[in-house]
Amino acid sequence: MSPRRKSYFKEKLSIDDLREIWSFLSLSECLEGFKDIDRLEAEEFFLSLEAPDQAKIIQCLPEAERRAWIRLLAPDDAADVIQQVPTEERQKLIDLLDDLSRKEVVALLAYAEDQAGGLMNPQFLRLRPDVSVDEAIRYLRRQTQGSVKGMYYVYVLDAEQHLLGVISFRELLSAPTDKTVQEIMKTNLITATENLDQEALSRLFTRQGLMAIPVVDEEGHMKGIVTLDDIVHVVREEATEDIQKIGGSEALDAPYLHIGIFKMIQKRAGWLTALFLSEMLTSNTLAHYEAKIASAVVLALFIPLIISSGGNSGSQASTLVIRALSLGELRLRDWWRVFFRELTAGLIMGGILGTVGLLRIVLWPTRSAIYGPHYFLLALTIAGSLVGVVLWGTLIGSMLPFVLRRLNLDPASASAPFVATLVDVSGLIIYFNVATLILKGTLL
Amino acid sequence: MSPRRKSYFKEKLSIDDLREIWSFLSLSECLEGFKDIDRLEAEEFFLSLEAPDQAKIIQCLPEAERRAWIRLLAPDDAADVIQQVPTEERQKLIDLLDDLSRKEVVALLAYAEDQAGGLMNPQFLRLRPDVSVDEAIRYLRRQTQGSVKGMYYVYVLDAEQHLLGVISFRELLSAPTDKTVQEIMKTNLITATENLDQEALSRLFTRQGLMAIPVVDEEGHMKGIVTLDDIVHVVREEATEDIQKIGGSEALDAPYLHIGIFKMIQKRAGWLTALFLSEMLTSNTLAHYEAKIASAVVLALFIPLIISSGGNSGSQASTLVIRALSLGELRLRDWWRVFFRELTAGLIMGGILGTVGLLRIVLWPTRSAIYGPHYFLLALTIAGSLVGVVLWGTLIGSMLPFVLRRLNLDPASASAPFVATLVDVSGLIIYFNVATLILKGTLL
Repeated sequence: MSPRRKSYFKEKLSIDDLREIWSFLSLSECLEGFKDIDRLEAEEFFLSLEAPDQAKIIQCLPEAERRAWIRLLAPDDAADVIQQVPTEERQKLIDLLDDLSRKEVVALLAYAEDQAGGLMNPQFLRLRPDVSVDEAIRYLRRQTQGSVKGMYYVYVLDAEQHLLGVISFRELLSAPTDKTVQEIMKTNLITATENLDQEALSRLFTRQGLMAIPVVDEEGHMKGIVTLDDIVHVVREEATEDIQKIGGSEALDAPYLHIGIFKMIQKRAGWLTALFLSEMLTSNTLAHYEAKIASAVVLALFIPLIISSGGNSGSQASTLVIRALSLGELRLRDWWRVFFRELTAGLIMGGILGTVGLLRIVLWPTRSAIYGPHYFLLALTIAGSLVGVVLWGTLIGSMLPFVLRRLNLDPASASAPFVATLVDVSGLIIYFNVATLILKGTLL
Repeated sequence: MSPRRKSYFKEKLSIDDLREIWSFLSLSECLEGFKDIDRLEAEEFFLSLEAPDQAKIIQCLPEAERRAWIRLLAPDDAADVIQQVPTEERQKLIDLLDDLSRKEVVALLAYAEDQAGGLMNPQFLRLRPDVSVDEAIRYLRRQTQGSVKGMYYVYVLDAEQHLLGVISFRELLSAPTDKTVQEIMKTNLITATENLDQEALSRLFTRQGLMAIPVVDEEGHMKGIVTLDDIVHVVREEATEDIQKIGGSEALDAPYLHIGIFKMIQKRAGWLTALFLSEMLTSNTLAHYEAKIASAVVLALFIPLIISSGGNSGSQASTLVIRALSLGELRLRDWWRVFFRELTAGLIMGGILGTVGLLRIVLWPTRSAIYGPHYFLLALTIAGSLVGVVLWGTLIGSMLPFVLRRLNLDPASASAPFVATLVDVSGLIIYFNVATLILKGTLL
């Protein structure tokens, strides 16, 4: 660390300063800043961080201080933090928890991180069905001392912990005090199962406009609640993963400046090399047409234009379909509706590009000097190839995400570069076949 | 509508059926299904829809029924719905509201839709600072009958509506009943100004881990609250826009199957044509090198391989940087950190592809037959060009989003196809210059 920056910190950071610069600091700088602020503010700041940052702070603290910090967290957040540390160190952190939390955290760690069970908080407000509204309110006033996140709803359970109904705080507070809880609770419940995927869960939240959803097991026992704040993270993370995959790399799983440069290169070089190896097929394909290029070098001039038009239209189509699939706007069985839409779109857009390409050659002042006496036939070749290549790119780009979903792979892997690479070889084949058809006897 | 589908609906849809198929129905089918379900369930379903769907339903209902439905909505949601209808029809809907809501909705309509003021709900729970906890709870029990969304916090205002502090329901319920509100309220407040952009607002929510944020004007008067459920929509919508732009089209602003086919083509054809026109520069560039291609046709075989490698590495870099900028992980002044990271990454990844390319040519069994006696020099040309093109693509891809942000344009417009197109021309220039350097006196 440079001496300049060290002295900068000696000016004592405020919590807002730290928050502002947090994501740009190295770990040791973070810790220094973190220790520097007032304890109460530090606790609030710590609670506002995401699990990976919380885990780093806890790991860097002296053993004696760790206990207090990890006990600040609700069980679901503690479980998230513990999942961030290397397997061999997890037990040490679990041992720092109090007995009740330890039991809950161990139970949570058994769930996959991206399922409802792994996102839920096992602590929630519960009531018996036969208490009165007045008793319920008095009981809840005593209950609310603990770290109960998301107390917008109170859940009504029977003695065997079966979920019977739900009441919002608002409904409870405004209900006549002499009624019983079961008379006013809502029994038409939206619930999630423990193994519901987080993407499906986030769609459930959006569709229902709820702040929290209860998680139940197969027998209807309530296991915990997932709250909307967890879902915001999920929505943002899933979009980030999709975007990074669409760009043609693996998901980074860390902020850009936080991930090590070699780790980042590793995440990018794999796909880049795979794409490169596939793209090598273009040189084999062109070798096949080498004699035609030799006899009409002018054909080579349009190779990048033709294949990039296929790649661009394919990228458009694939990203639109990937996003619609991941938002749940499209389902697997809608593929044929998409197919016909993209068929129309591909033909029209191919027609537009073909016309522009045709006019560009035919109306260019020095057309005969550059393209030779057969410039009109050449223009027809380019136009015809463009229609074919754009249509083909659009269809491949829109159908590939469905194929990947069908194979249980991530549709987002149909990245812009991947689709472009796929379309390049076929684009060349289309181009040279159209050229052979139109230019036979003149240029070829 | 086909008779088959009509009879399907006559079986009486349940609310869950309707929810499941909702996004796949045409508007008239939606309405039919909507009218078919129980009134209470219909209300709940209506409230769970997004503003564009709510607006469509209201517009299709007979005038007499509209009033009841629009009055179901909280003022911020009503304002969203009104913003969905054509300008000339807005006043009619506004007139259907009760006096208080009408005033609030008109005030909300003055804000831009993507600012805190446009997202906020002007109704919230408020208390005077000098009431006791016990009085406050009794008061809130009477207050909670109305349509107050997001009652997780109660705001403490003075007589001039200045925001003084906040208490969560949890804190209020568990506080000693004889204290006054000002003794227990939190005064270290996170607030948003009315014109705060929704992207900045959503980052504020994530960083702070709050369920609601109060919106204040310049003098500290409280105007309303933004709740986390609005932010989930914002996060999802912004990601969708980014993804669609990264794929090289305009943002669709509607679900894939809901947008008209010609509207969709319009959103895509513009960019596609612009990219096509820029890509035409490649044919001018190649025309410049036509003599070289004629004397060494083998060079043409590698054109797609070289330019696509530049495009792919550029797409990777630009999408990573776009996402990091939009998550706030990177700021404008971080450009040089990114520059040096990408310089390293570009050199290493270029080195990897160059090596693979070199080996591919040198070790190919029929190398002399396809590539001629100078295959080793050719291999060196390809390898050298790959290092240059990948490095160049990576740098252009990573810097372009910063340039766009600096010009106050959307960094996401540095789409994969746009970067690829930019890099194609320069990639060709790099390739033919490296070729001239290495192959002079042999092939050229």
